[in-house]
Amino acid sequence: MRIVVVNPNTTASMTARIERSARAVAGPGTRVDAVTSTMGPASIESHYDEALSVPGVLAAVRAGGADGYVIACFGDPGLDAAREVAAAPVVGIAEAAMHAAALLGRGFSVVTTLDRTRGRAWDLAGRYVAPGACRGVHACDIPVLDLDGDPAVTDRVVALARAALARDGSDVVVLGCAGMADLAAEVSRRVGVPVVDGVAAATLLVQSLVTLGLGTSKHGELAPPPPKPYTGALTPFGTA
Amino acid sequence: MRIVVVNPNTTASMTARIERSARAVAGPGTRVDAVTSTMGPASIESHYDEALSVPGVLAAVRAGGADGYVIACFGDPGLDAAREVAAAPVVGIAEAAMHAAALLGRGFSVVTTLDRTRGRAWDLAGRYVAPGACRGVHACDIPVLDLDGDPAVTDRVVALARAALARDGSDVVVLGCAGMADLAAEVSRRVGVPVVDGVAAATLLVQSLVTLGLGTSKHGELAPPPPKPYTGALTPFGTA
Amino acid sequence: MRIVVVNPNTTASMTARIERSARAVAGPGTRVDAVTSTMGPASIESHYDEALSVPGVLAAVRAGGADGYVIACFGDPGLDAAREVAAAPVVGIAEAAMHAAALLGRGFSVVTTLDRTRGRAWDLAGRYVAPGACRGVHACDIPVLDLDGDPAVTDRVVALARAALARDGSDVVVLGCAGMADLAAEVSRRVGVPVVDGVAAATLLVQSLVTLGLGTSKHGELAPPPPKPYTGALTPFGTA
Amino acid sequence: MRIVVVNPNTTASMTARIERSARAVAGPGTRVDAVTSTMGPASIESHYDEALSVPGVLAAVRAGGADGYVIACFGDPGLDAAREVAAAPVVGIAEAAMHAAALLGRGFSVVTTLDRTRGRAWDLAGRYVAPGACRGVHACDIPVLDLDGDPAVTDRVVALARAALARDGSDVVVLGCAGMADLAAEVSRRVGVPVVDGVAAATLLVQSLVTLGLGTSKHGELAPPPPKPYTGALTPFGTA
Amino acid sequence: MRIVVVNPNTTASMTARIERSARAVAGPGTRVDAVTSTMGPASIESHYDEALSVPGVLAAVRAGGADGYVIACFGDPGLDAAREVAAAPVVGIAEAAMHAAALLGRGFSVVTTLDRTRGRAWDLAGRYVAPGACRGVHACDIPVLDLDGDPAVTDRVVALARAALARDGSDVVVLGCAGMADLAAEVSRRVGVPVVDGVAAATLLVQSLVTLGLGTSKHGELAPPPPKPYTGALTPFGTA
Amino acid sequence: MRIVVVNPNTTASMTARIERSARAVAGPGTRVDAVTSTMGPASIESHYDEALSVPGVLAAVRAGGADGYVIACFGDPGLDAAREVAAAPVVGIAEAAMHAAALLGRGFSVVTTLDRTRGRAWDLAGRYVAPGACRGVHACDIPVLDLDGDPAVTDRVVALARAALARDGSDVVVLGCAGMADLAAEVSRRVGVPVVDGVAAATLLVQSLVTLGLGTSKHGELAPPPPKPYTGALTPFGTA
Repeated sequence: MRIVVVNPNTTASMTARIERSARAVAGPGTRVDAVTSTMGPASIESHYDEALSVPGVLAAVRAGGADGYVIACFGDPGLDAAREVAAAPVVGIAEAAMHAAALLGRGFSVVTTLDRTRGRAWDLAGRYVAPGACRGVHACDIPVLDLDGDPAVTDRVVALARAALARDGSDVVVLGCAGMADLAAEVSRRVGVPVVDGVAAATLLVQSLVTLGLGTSKHGELAPPPPKPYTGALTPFGTA
Repeated sequence: MRIVVVNPNTTASMTARIERSARAVAGPGTRVDAVTSTMGPASIESHYDEALSVPGVLAAVRAGGADGYVIACFGDPGLDAAREVAAAPVVGIAEAAMHAAALLGRGFSVVTTLDRTRGRAWDLAGRYVAPGACRGVHACDIPVLDLDGDPAVTDRVVALARAALARDGSDVVVLGCAGMADLAAEVSRRVGVPVVDGVAAATLLVQSLVTLGLGTSKHGELAPPPPKPYTGALTPFGTA
Repeated sequence: MRIVVVNPNTTASMTARIERSARAVAGPGTRVDAVTSTMGPASIESHYDEALSVPGVLAAVRAGGADGYVIACFGDPGLDAAREVAAAPVVGIAEAAMHAAALLGRGFSVVTTLDRTRGRAWDLAGRYVAPGACRGVHACDIPVLDLDGDPAVTDRVVALARAALARDGSDVVVLGCAGMADLAAEVSRRVGVPVVDGVAAATLLVQSLVTLGLGTSKHGELAPPPPKPYTGALTPFGTA
Repeated sequence: MRIVVVNPNTTASMTARIERSARAVAGPGTRVDAVTSTMGPASIESHYDEALSVPGVLAAVRAGGADGYVIACFGDPGLDAAREVAAAPVVGIAEAAMHAAALLGRGFSVVTTLDRTRGRAWDLAGRYVAPGACRGVHACDIPVLDLDGDPAVTDRVVALARAALARDGSDVVVLGCAGMADLAAEVSRRVGVPVVDGVAAATLLVQSLVTLGLGTSKHGELAPPPPKPYTGALTPFGTA
Repeated sequence: MRIVVVNPNTTASMTARIERSARAVAGPGTRVDAVTSTMGPASIESHYDEALSVPGVLAAVRAGGADGYVIACFGDPGLDAAREVAAAPVVGIAEAAMHAAALLGRGFSVVTTLDRTRGRAWDLAGRYVAPGACRGVHACDIPVLDLDGDPAVTDRVVALARAALARDGSDVVVLGCAGMADLAAEVSRRVGVPVVDGVAAATLLVQSLVTLGLGTSKHGELAPPPPKPYTGALTPFGTA
Repeated sequence: MRIVVVNPNTTASMTARIERSARAVAGPGTRVDAVTSTMGPASIESHYDEALSVPGVLAAVRAGGADGYVIACFGDPGLDAAREVAAAPVVGIAEAAMHAAALLGRGFSVVTTLDRTRGRAWDLAGRYVAPGACRGVHACDIPVLDLDGDPAVTDRVVALARAALARDGSDVVVLGCAGMADLAAEVSRRVGVPVVDGVAAATLLVQSLVTLGLGTSKHGELAPPPPKPYTGALTPFGTA
């Protein structure tokens, strides 16, 4: 099977890192390709960025050619819309990480980038998992594009994860940004709890759904959208 | 003061109807102008349409020149992002209608267009009002652009509202589409309960906030987004 | 239109302050009159005081003669009962402030008077707004009748508001007492976030409902109460 | 010990029936006296009646002389205020019935009098028991003062209880009016499930609390109210 | 009537202490016998211990001969299953303590033994009482079998209770282990708030249910289990 | 890797069916072995059966020798305890099915065996997924051991699934019994929505967790239980 991992921002170096994380866990019969969004923000650090990353995500999903899709930004931008237009299953990395974390302990803490993105993480936790599963969302105050392998970044994430576990009474850590994908193993080793990277988790969830023969329900709300003309810069998104 | 009411779809005739509803309730010192989105779908009837209406909403809000903004689609597309980029207050018609309905009775029912949009209305109710306030969401199965003053449409909405009140044990009706704005008075007269149109409600809420000197908090999550370059068809949305 | 603002306690000087706040925001065609309760406690600082302020509130509302009513105590005493007996809309200042605050940010903190009134504020938040909207309720430990314009009071409220924003991760402040109505502008200026006074907010919400032609639903639970005789000191409240 | 059961309405015949139910279950060392409110409505069938029954309840509780108090109206009028002013424990019949019902099955249905009182029962269930414990509230449309032993009343309650169990998937019935106290045994026998009368349940809960040496916490919110003057018809309630 | 109090662990000295607490509050016509589980763990300090205490609890309840049963471990092990197999009412000490605490204040704190049992207490609070009633669960880090009357233990529980009240804003303390039953009076005296011991509370709740003629509903989910053969070490539990 | 799938009941024919379902989806490098519980009930159809299936589950998990465990009964018996004693990850089929279903649509319906097991399914949904995800639990009234490939059984499940989707407004079906594992494909084909079998889903979730290098957190509540002696028939479970 082929899984396409969509990087909703336009930064190709981040796409490469995401692809490595996804490929590292995919099964022998699974080909993983990561694609960079062709329109929108260089990184996603606000509701504004997130909303404007959605057209690029939808363009990538509409391009088709895959048995399943991963949306590789922790805000899960455009997830419902992508499910409407894709024939194949679509999984966001926040939902993947949170569902996986729920299997590993009694409560998890999210460690994310900027303080202003914490609200979105809480919103998604409210939508994905049972009340009480997400016990805290903490920001390391490092911009997305600075998550580049600098050891000081890892140190800061480790320190924040430790503090979060103590303050929240949690026992699992969720990394709240696709750009942190390559930190999971080291943070887990140093902090001593399971640390979930959504990119890897989502890749295996999509692979599992495809293996199970399961895709998005087309009965009801997530059926293909009613066709209609689109206007202006978004004309290519028209469905009639 | 000047209030701009943004029609998130690209259908000018609907904008005209929205503008009439908003102007009918605005105070003597308030000028109301409705604007049609310049990009995106002709009507909003799916998560896909809604997501792709957001760039047009944000373009209208970024154009500035108003003391307050109304987003006139019942999905409140782009509300958080619009609050980030606007200096002035922004109110969505779903939130306006639901907050107003909460002041008028013990529980409300939403009457909307297509069955597939019911999920979004439930999501918004969960975000805006206390659990139990929204007691049901019902679809009349009329596409948005067919809500055009045909008396048969009114009859169908009246019948659906009556059934909803009985089934849900509710005492207030919320109209779940900007295109229904001009039906509120007649439906209320015939059904015998308060019927809330979000366009009029949002216009007065924005006017009230401006009078109170209150705007979106710029402390924290809704501060202006971090500046950065944008790419492709969305390049004009770049903030750096 | 005429709006009557009911001060549920019997302290006339507080009524005068409330009236000023309400009149300062009312529209050109709106006359606002504040009335002092004729029976009950001099201030409302317990469940006992609040319960015993209700007869005075209901007497004022039953006196009629208005197009809308505001109940100007942050406990919203007698709100459901007032809605039953009034033909016109009735809004409490706690519900008005909380609904308005929900339009201005992602979460608000309430700053109130005595510690023992915090529970009531939480109860009302649970009834009015979505879970998570109210993020904290904080007491400045100043009795209601000492909120009299002393600059030291303002300083204490400012300090408490700052601490609340930091502790709760909130971005809006709600003033939790009608006696704080005249502090909103200065606290907002000094703290740097929107500060909502319920008296002004409720006045504009009632004015808006009247303009929209909306009143309490008389379908069901809030219909006029079944008539019956009353006994003892409450005989005048009898409805048969 | 002595337990005072307060009938919040002014109908003495109902007080007598309540007293019989309470005395029937009290232990050998417990004296039970029921008292009729000296002011307010003849029966409680609206928010208005309930609010105006509170002064009478508080007067009875302030009279003192008991080791514990029961408030014998299913709206639990004035419960928080009564706890503030009483040294001894106070239990409402709705809370007693709901807590007891939670020990007997997986979910209960409330059978009450008028349709318009259903909202209050839901509010109290939300306050007292876990979400999901109360599965339905059903009205038999019999006014409170017509619950007078007529066999036709019992038949109607039995039929409604059966319908409620089937519709709600519940396994316990709670009688939602003090006037139904003497129906519990027969309804239980005919319907085949536990049927909880709040008057008897509250009497034994208060007796149990007294035996356990437990009373209302005076640490914090339910401490005696701050003393102050009262005005008008409510002057006798003044605490200073 | 005869009430059997089941100690789910196999430590007879603890059974003796439990029996004393239960007998101290039972009414004159009530005989209380405590029994020690005949199989399973010496104390219950993990999900593993708790799960493996259930067969012993069920064996004790199936032995019959009582009018009501108390399960005297704060995890309420096997409660639903015991209700299925018992004809008489069954009450757990956690549910008894939490329901009683809800009648005494606005919110309670649980003081328990080991940190790792806090999650179970939260789970039970979510099942038994309204959201917000349980405001904190705190561990004194004393193993169950060390709760043996040592004054240092009492001191530690007192200190923890004081800290819990301040941190949680609660006004009642619940003792979170059957082994703490004999501490309630002294902790209450020293801390100044009601302190609820579940053993005594459950004993009186069961006695009250029996007096009321109420037992577990046999309509639906808690009817006797379908009969069937059992295998291996658990063969005696077979029901066919 | 090796995954052990534990059948918590003692019926070997059902174990064989479960093993087939699990093996059908496992990856090329994964060996799956199903084991039958050696003690307890022949099928699990009550809280009593479920509680008494736990020792057998724990014995199987303590036997070790696997990289991950599946508990193959929809009540997820002993899940928390199994996580404490296992070094490797453990997943229950109810949690696996519910988490997977949450990725496929907006809301799912559970189709299970006996009516009396519906409450347990609701309890688990409340623990695993967000409120609103599980929209209904429906019983086909077929005992567990009669789910044996009879075409009439499939017809009944198909009919129930169709009715559930319509009544609940859901778009995904979850099979609520391990004994239904081999029905998923046919029911999905005939009903036209995704149908999730928990056995297959749990097998791939465990395989994914092992691939990700993730196991149960041993930080806190799910650390190995404190060692201690056990007594009676359960002596072999002693940990000291």
